[in-house]
Amino acid sequence: MIIQVKKPASSTRTRFLDAARYLFWEKGYAATGMAEILERAEANSGSFYHFFSSKEALLLAVLDGYLEGLEPVIVKPAFARHSDPIDRIFAILQGYRERLVETGCRYGCPLGRLALEIEAENLPAHNRIAANFGGWIAAVRGCLEAARDRFPPSLDLDALATFVLTTMEGGVLQSRSCRRLEPFDQSVAQLRNYFACLTGGRDTVPKPKKKGKQE
Amino acid sequence: MIIQVKKPASSTRTRFLDAARYLFWEKGYAATGMAEILERAEANSGSFYHFFSSKEALLLAVLDGYLEGLEPVIVKPAFARHSDPIDRIFAILQGYRERLVETGCRYGCPLGRLALEIEAENLPAHNRIAANFGGWIAAVRGCLEAARDRFPPSLDLDALATFVLTTMEGGVLQSRSCRRLEPFDQSVAQLRNYFACLTGGRDTVPKPKKKGKQE
Repeated sequence: MIIQVKKPASSTRTRFLDAARYLFWEKGYAATGMAEILERAEANSGSFYHFFSSKEALLLAVLDGYLEGLEPVIVKPAFARHSDPIDRIFAILQGYRERLVETGCRYGCPLGRLALEIEAENLPAHNRIAANFGGWIAAVRGCLEAARDRFPPSLDLDALATFVLTTMEGGVLQSRSCRRLEPFDQSVAQLRNYFACLTGGRDTVPKPKKKGKQE
Repeated sequence: MIIQVKKPASSTRTRFLDAARYLFWEKGYAATGMAEILERAEANSGSFYHFFSSKEALLLAVLDGYLEGLEPVIVKPAFARHSDPIDRIFAILQGYRERLVETGCRYGCPLGRLALEIEAENLPAHNRIAANFGGWIAAVRGCLEAARDRFPPSLDLDALATFVLTTMEGGVLQSRSCRRLEPFDQSVAQLRNYFACLTGGRDTVPKPKKKGKQE
């Protein structure tokens, strides 16, 4: 009898999650078959159903995983680059630009993709996608709050934070289609110009508002 | 012998296109099976292959159809509402808001969806999606050009036109996920505020720039 060294259960579950994350991003949720998930995770269907009741349950776990990864994968590396709160926002966007560059503009934000792909009736999935978007927006909102005194007092910071996510998603989506960085870069440049308008011409240095005169 | 009144060939082809347009939008490209297309088009596979060599060929025809529909379906109705060029841009966006309202925020821009779903290697499809985006941006660009004298001379109108599409796509995507109009409305409101900043506080009336002073 050969004694087989079993991989710990958590590692198998993680392999399913890694496989699904890759395949749902690369091929989409509907186009990914169970056979591909099993092959990529190097596991059998008995093992799969030990951890997940269905492909949909796996999707929900993947979406939960994205939310857990938001802080360490997206926010923290961007914040580590800069201390200025507005620079931090654009560093998050720069992170997406780097993913576009690395993939020859094949990158599509996995959450944006699932937001448009998953059927509208699948509320558990859409609730999790919305929670991811909410977490992303909250991170940006925190930066805006930290730079509060640079913006007009009447500015809706929640709306501006949402608009930053809108810029990322809309820019990535267009760059993926035409395989050029230009739409993403143009969109971020326009957002930066908007920030410059809001902060009186300079977006990195606090500047007191002067009545009736702006730079 | 019963004489069957055959529907003209163009009508059958149109039924395939209508069926595919609906199903690719509602379910996605990958999730739509040939059987569903045939059932919805009320036609058989022999008829299908008379018109299209494959499901992918049907997709390309659908994308060509969107481009043909851009002017009559998206642009013309919006332009008919307003004569002011900047109002026309926001009327296009308002059209998407109405689609969100009509569908209880289930609406996902079909082109945005396909841009993120179709595999990056499918260049014929992505070239057509990019052509659709290009046509949309060109319509907005025309409005911006017509309002040229209201914007700062250094403003990149191509980039701003792209940013308008970015706002639409990113806003729709988020509203679909959370099933609320708010992200779309917030994004359009921020874009409107940006236009107001650019045009000196008023986005519908031409205003000469005064040196060192802005409203």
